Amino acid sequence: MSDNRRKLGIIAGGGSIPRILIDYAKNHEIPYFVLAIEGNADRAIFDDSINHKWIRIGQAGTGFKFLRDEGVQDVVMIGTIHRPTFSELMPDLRTTAFFTKLGLRALGDDGILRALVKEIETENIKVVGVHEIMPDLLVKEGLLTKVKPDKQALVDIERGIEVDITLGSLDVGQSVIVQQGLVLGVEGIEGTDELIRRCANYRRKGTGGVLVKLRKLQQDMRIDLPTIGVTTIENAHKAGLRGIAVHAGNALIVDEQRVIELANKYKMFVIGINPAEKIR
Amino acid sequence: MSDNRRKLGIIAGGGSIPRILIDYAKNHEIPYFVLAIEGNADRAIFDDSINHKWIRIGQAGTGFKFLRDEGVQDVVMIGTIHRPTFSELMPDLRTTAFFTKLGLRALGDDGILRALVKEIETENIKVVGVHEIMPDLLVKEGLLTKVKPDKQALVDIERGIEVDITLGSLDVGQSVIVQQGLVLGVEGIEGTDELIRRCANYRRKGTGGVLVKLRKLQQDMRIDLPTIGVTTIENAHKAGLRGIAVHAGNALIVDEQRVIELANKYKMFVIGINPAEKIR
Repeated sequence: MSDNRRKLGIIAGGGSIPRILIDYAKNHEIPYFVLAIEGNADRAIFDDSINHKWIRIGQAGTGFKFLRDEGVQDVVMIGTIHRPTFSELMPDLRTTAFFTKLGLRALGDDGILRALVKEIETENIKVVGVHEIMPDLLVKEGLLTKVKPDKQALVDIERGIEVDITLGSLDVGQSVIVQQGLVLGVEGIEGTDELIRRCANYRRKGTGGVLVKLRKLQQDMRIDLPTIGVTTIENAHKAGLRGIAVHAGNALIVDEQRVIELANKYKMFVIGINPAEKIR
Repeated sequence: MSDNRRKLGIIAGGGSIPRILIDYAKNHEIPYFVLAIEGNADRAIFDDSINHKWIRIGQAGTGFKFLRDEGVQDVVMIGTIHRPTFSELMPDLRTTAFFTKLGLRALGDDGILRALVKEIETENIKVVGVHEIMPDLLVKEGLLTKVKPDKQALVDIERGIEVDITLGSLDVGQSVIVQQGLVLGVEGIEGTDELIRRCANYRRKGTGGVLVKLRKLQQDMRIDLPTIGVTTIENAHKAGLRGIAVHAGNALIVDEQRVIELANKYKMFVIGINPAEKIR
């Protein structure tokens, strides 16, 4: 079976997606090997039934050796990675050379990851996006829930799209919360869950806000796609948001069925949008 | 004395600047009248020695009447205003007419304030910036402290300028915190103090970050200029920031001497920058 299948390396960060991909590989008899990133990947996921090794961020040389030893041909980077700064990176030889190559300059927040993709590909390993393996993870276009956005929500979504696109072009965040036309919060490094939580404190009276989450325009589809899941809905509900607009075909939805059920229960909308098209 | 002086209306929001302006008016025998905004202006400031009246946000009609009754000729809007949403605004006749005129659309975060300036000027009252009365409040260009930004700090400031300018063009925030090239946080509606506090949680190891605070390019100098003061320095110090770069000639520094003394004590830099000029 697996002889004519390419071996898949999974570089695993935090959250539940790495497990979903590992289960998928197992169920579809795709040969795989996981590099689990310390401080990011969830230790509870990795028992003896999973072919994996742990590395620290900064152990690029060791990581490449593991991938070679395992005969990995394709690599997927998946799950949340706490973005490292230069001084956080533990020095090993390969890493030092890698950063010498980059030089001291201000990288965008995905700059280090993009440079890593290039570096992996010098090893003749192909970096692929998780959506190339599991296309069902991508958010579909259109309304996913029973409740749909009303006129005010559409105004808020439009404003969110405008802010997201511009922020994304700077390689900063990809999420924004808008309530009644006011931008309550903009995502920096904190991640969407934290953004939602803090915006609960800035909530205005009246009609609740909307989360708009887009892929950065120039963002490599193989790197850290925007993702929503059950936690996003739970947090959004607690923060009094009325709904979520997310980039159709360019963002991931983990556990879609449960996400939609939960959103319906909370009378929230979830809509897959194409920011290039007029939404009202 | 005051016969040939124009009467100054002060629409007072939160913080200590309204008091500084009131004291200035008193000391320079400028006739004045204060409209203190409930829920924003500091009640402790307004004793019987100050000619003032309180209004709620949304009582525009009442506010205009007070300004007319007092014979106000110039108006300064000063201090922090919790940005209202439509549904927070208490309906009175004038306010309703004002918002009917605006229509339901997504205003930028300063959109309502800009519309208010126009509305005040239909009353033949001139809206002026606080810097036109107290030019010393403006941040001076160049290094204000003993410590100066090193190479990494200059890289961070450059990245901050880039992000700030773009955010400002969207009429969103005007502050950003950058550490070692990473954008830790971007200001939404929460204000700079909250931005600084939360970024303490996202701080990376190693060299600390920098706060960059600019006036939005299209921002009316008469509306809510970016401001730093003693609290900014205290918060920045607690959050492990190494310094603050602020828009020279376009931002206010409250209590400059104490700000500089405190920054020197904490070995932080404060620098007045011109974002249009190369900083390194």
